[in-house]
Amino acid sequence: MPSQTIQDLVTELQGLPTDLFQKDFLLTWEHPEEQIRAILTLAETFKRLHQEGTSYRAFDTGLAISIFRDNSTRTRFSFASAASAMGLSLSDLDEQKSQIAHGETVRETANMISFLTEVIGIRDDMFLGAGNTYMREVGAALTDGTKQGVLHRRPSLINLQCDVDHPTQSLADLAWLKKHFGGLENLRGKKIAMTWAYSPSYGKPLSVPQGIIGLMTRFGMDVSLAYPEGYGLIPDVVEVAKKNAAEAGGTFEVVNSMEAAFANADIVYPKSWAPYEVMGRRTELLTKGDKDGLKALEKECLANNAKFTSWECDRKKMDLTRAGKALYMHCLPADITDVSCKAGEVSAEVFEQYRIPTYHEAAYKPFVISALMFLERIADPAAKLAEIVSRGRKLHI
Amino acid sequence: MPSQTIQDLVTELQGLPTDLFQKDFLLTWEHPEEQIRAILTLAETFKRLHQEGTSYRAFDTGLAISIFRDNSTRTRFSFASAASAMGLSLSDLDEQKSQIAHGETVRETANMISFLTEVIGIRDDMFLGAGNTYMREVGAALTDGTKQGVLHRRPSLINLQCDVDHPTQSLADLAWLKKHFGGLENLRGKKIAMTWAYSPSYGKPLSVPQGIIGLMTRFGMDVSLAYPEGYGLIPDVVEVAKKNAAEAGGTFEVVNSMEAAFANADIVYPKSWAPYEVMGRRTELLTKGDKDGLKALEKECLANNAKFTSWECDRKKMDLTRAGKALYMHCLPADITDVSCKAGEVSAEVFEQYRIPTYHEAAYKPFVISALMFLERIADPAAKLAEIVSRGRKLHI
Amino acid sequence: MPSQTIQDLVTELQGLPTDLFQKDFLLTWEHPEEQIRAILTLAETFKRLHQEGTSYRAFDTGLAISIFRDNSTRTRFSFASAASAMGLSLSDLDEQKSQIAHGETVRETANMISFLTEVIGIRDDMFLGAGNTYMREVGAALTDGTKQGVLHRRPSLINLQCDVDHPTQSLADLAWLKKHFGGLENLRGKKIAMTWAYSPSYGKPLSVPQGIIGLMTRFGMDVSLAYPEGYGLIPDVVEVAKKNAAEAGGTFEVVNSMEAAFANADIVYPKSWAPYEVMGRRTELLTKGDKDGLKALEKECLANNAKFTSWECDRKKMDLTRAGKALYMHCLPADITDVSCKAGEVSAEVFEQYRIPTYHEAAYKPFVISALMFLERIADPAAKLAEIVSRGRKLHI
Repeated sequence: MPSQTIQDLVTELQGLPTDLFQKDFLLTWEHPEEQIRAILTLAETFKRLHQEGTSYRAFDTGLAISIFRDNSTRTRFSFASAASAMGLSLSDLDEQKSQIAHGETVRETANMISFLTEVIGIRDDMFLGAGNTYMREVGAALTDGTKQGVLHRRPSLINLQCDVDHPTQSLADLAWLKKHFGGLENLRGKKIAMTWAYSPSYGKPLSVPQGIIGLMTRFGMDVSLAYPEGYGLIPDVVEVAKKNAAEAGGTFEVVNSMEAAFANADIVYPKSWAPYEVMGRRTELLTKGDKDGLKALEKECLANNAKFTSWECDRKKMDLTRAGKALYMHCLPADITDVSCKAGEVSAEVFEQYRIPTYHEAAYKPFVISALMFLERIADPAAKLAEIVSRGRKLHI
Repeated sequence: MPSQTIQDLVTELQGLPTDLFQKDFLLTWEHPEEQIRAILTLAETFKRLHQEGTSYRAFDTGLAISIFRDNSTRTRFSFASAASAMGLSLSDLDEQKSQIAHGETVRETANMISFLTEVIGIRDDMFLGAGNTYMREVGAALTDGTKQGVLHRRPSLINLQCDVDHPTQSLADLAWLKKHFGGLENLRGKKIAMTWAYSPSYGKPLSVPQGIIGLMTRFGMDVSLAYPEGYGLIPDVVEVAKKNAAEAGGTFEVVNSMEAAFANADIVYPKSWAPYEVMGRRTELLTKGDKDGLKALEKECLANNAKFTSWECDRKKMDLTRAGKALYMHCLPADITDVSCKAGEVSAEVFEQYRIPTYHEAAYKPFVISALMFLERIADPAAKLAEIVSRGRKLHI
Repeated sequence: MPSQTIQDLVTELQGLPTDLFQKDFLLTWEHPEEQIRAILTLAETFKRLHQEGTSYRAFDTGLAISIFRDNSTRTRFSFASAASAMGLSLSDLDEQKSQIAHGETVRETANMISFLTEVIGIRDDMFLGAGNTYMREVGAALTDGTKQGVLHRRPSLINLQCDVDHPTQSLADLAWLKKHFGGLENLRGKKIAMTWAYSPSYGKPLSVPQGIIGLMTRFGMDVSLAYPEGYGLIPDVVEVAKKNAAEAGGTFEVVNSMEAAFANADIVYPKSWAPYEVMGRRTELLTKGDKDGLKALEKECLANNAKFTSWECDRKKMDLTRAGKALYMHCLPADITDVSCKAGEVSAEVFEQYRIPTYHEAAYKPFVISALMFLERIADPAAKLAEIVSRGRKLHI
């Protein structure tokens, strides 16, 4: 397929009706396929506009708020970049410096920070069962505040990673696959191996593998989820993946061998996570503030992890993939054997071979977040995009 | 009164000469009534413009600096929102990350951060006798730096809460009362009960009650200040309130009973604070870094507070107000019995009944701060406002 | 010389070809004299434009990132001010809140934060031999990321102080000298004493004295570097200074007496620093995390420092300078005897006499940083400056 022009992309968006205006984006599987396609089309358009030095700014003023309840580099800067590109001022809500410790309710805080706010991005992935719930609590408070006339317009939420999904990651991954394989159609029948990999750490969220199986199953791909026994994901999300695959005419399987998943794979995504059951126990201990319990759990888990150091993405396993040339993906940072740790998710050789492709993958995130902001805030996004392209405002004024 | 149009508000501002250009706003009672009225008119205009999606941006570039020496959520985001709406970039001076610990003088720091700065917002409410003094020290340094040609234009200060006043709070409160009762004229003869209330914490600043009695007494209201014996405010501010009431034709009384203050009140503002005398002792101990002394003082005060748990705003006390229907106000977050604590300032039932009105009250703060920024930085604010309204620049460009 | 008009400055810049587009600025001595002159001309132009209320904004949107690995007030706010004036959004990379602790490589982080980034300012002055090296590692990663198509345009670095140079400081100092003496030509033959001074602290970076001797030797000045035996600078930088002086027709000497350096000086710059050799040992201990070793070293150094309390810039020493009227300079904050410490770098009397001139010196830093951003990002800076001047966009819109 010859590469689409910016004008082609503008036309494509016109054929993709969306329904995100003044709403939230929390889980990819809550949104119809057209909307997912619109996000990808917009992200690609914004990326191209940025590349040619054209501004896609859509706001004169306004606030974008980020709430990070866990560390972040790339998502933090992706959100900051998107806010800047959109013309929004970024304010980070640092819960340590606020009065939230006072026992203030989520309902109240949500309204108090939102009087001139357009979007709120939230990362809350530490507590299983809590992160997504918290986002919905914020969303309900915003809906109520708007209904009551407290807020002039309802701000929109963007899930920057919760316990269930990491949609800005999986959408960036999908945008990269679309680019790499020359279109979403070309993903049909491709096999993607989403597999657990060894890491000398524990407590990594489940949201990346869950996000991948929840999204990639919608485009006719053959999704193979692999993990050592005991490292299962949230059962409800696995059900979503099964249903998606059936509807989209692809397949979804769960295997307990990295090799099985890699066999003839077109794409591999080896990444560590903590078992669902462990995350549940951890959440309980975190909630109780039981430090001794947490230490004991960490020890137990690291010992269990250590049984699976062979779950490393190395040259030999890559040779099992289609023609030995599967595309390696990672949300970064990867635990690289002999680079960031003694034994990790991926060998230095394989990672180095695919390092630049993983950077291209990551490069989509700020544009995906820009696209979400745009769809959530602009009443008629296709018309506005056409206007932005035709106005041709330069980044350097 | 039929609601004013935006054009009515523009005309109203023309009749309210102001004198804040390149000056500071530290205490409401240092400013003539016309200026207070101008702030309210502007805040209402900006709120209406924002509601209809019109930008009131007044700067192409420039810096707004915030200095928070105490925690803050709503004032922090109100200041950030106002800066964004005005087109200013926000920079927070985090004294931990600066060289201020080096023993750098206030005079020097004030100049060093101000070369391209338009406004500086300061919260400094921890030390009685110190916060407002610090702000004046900064202001004097800015005046001197400007006179010496170091600064091209003198930046302006906004008091975001000190030991004496909390003007952005009391002005937002007044803007809300003006809206709620349909005009400042309608406040004449209304009774407002500014009363102490029980809280299971101690050390809360005096600036809110002081701000309320210092401002509401200027509009012909009957201001009743109530607190348990020993919980007095700064005597000088009480004198200001007395003088204001006499001049404005209202009344000001001090009583030692919540019930007496609530009797026939049109508005109630129950809120905890620490006794003036205690704040003085606390300041001494904080200055000395006497941790044992602070603990002992806290214990003593909590024990004393505990004698007054009956100072709770509950249904029974609300029934004492005019027709049992007084407007409940709070600067938020409130200590709500059985919600944020076992026994607090207000019962869950009363708070829930008035929750949305308190959000409306809070909603004025970003617009009040916007108004202060505008009056402090724009040479002819009435003309500029007319221009902003007629240019009709959209928030979504 | 009659003061130049803004139009004169625009014309002057046209005669100063530069070569900084999409490159970095790390050490002044890596850049030809014309480029240094262009920076000063631009900084002066921007300062004048700001003074008359004209915006020199050059970006519609875009990110400026700061990375501070050491405390900062004036450089932090200078960078924030410059970013705002340029129209860039500022994001601070707080390494505590990022995933960098995970063992992520510099190469990766550099790319991950740069997808929509224009400039990255870095302060890294704690580890001798490490700060400048780190900046070059970031720069190499950006070059590679751009070559690989990961980054649409290579962001540019600005050294906000490293172990070797503090170019935004020395350039602001030079801009101030140019202004004070009425042109760079007038600096020829002027004597500047860059001397060590006593401070009751230790571990101060060498970058300021190194920056001064590396830059001032290029304009025909007589540079006298003075320090107590054992307080030498990095030998390579001293070689640079010697070479510069020889080429520019000035002189460079090293003496071990403050009085010798002050004799007939036109300018004095008394400032404490730690000996090169001590900084080396400190770096080793910091790297090992050897807290006891660090304490022992601090004790030893403070004891050694204490032998040189007579190295104070006082009235008596100032009397040795040309007509007793040398210009006193400091990067601030200074350790002032009886003000910020018992015995320090400068007497209260001398500092107070020159306090305002040091503020004027500091006032150039935001404009120097603006100039660096402009030269690094704008393909034809002279043409763009002419356009900015002729468009006459106001700060207050």
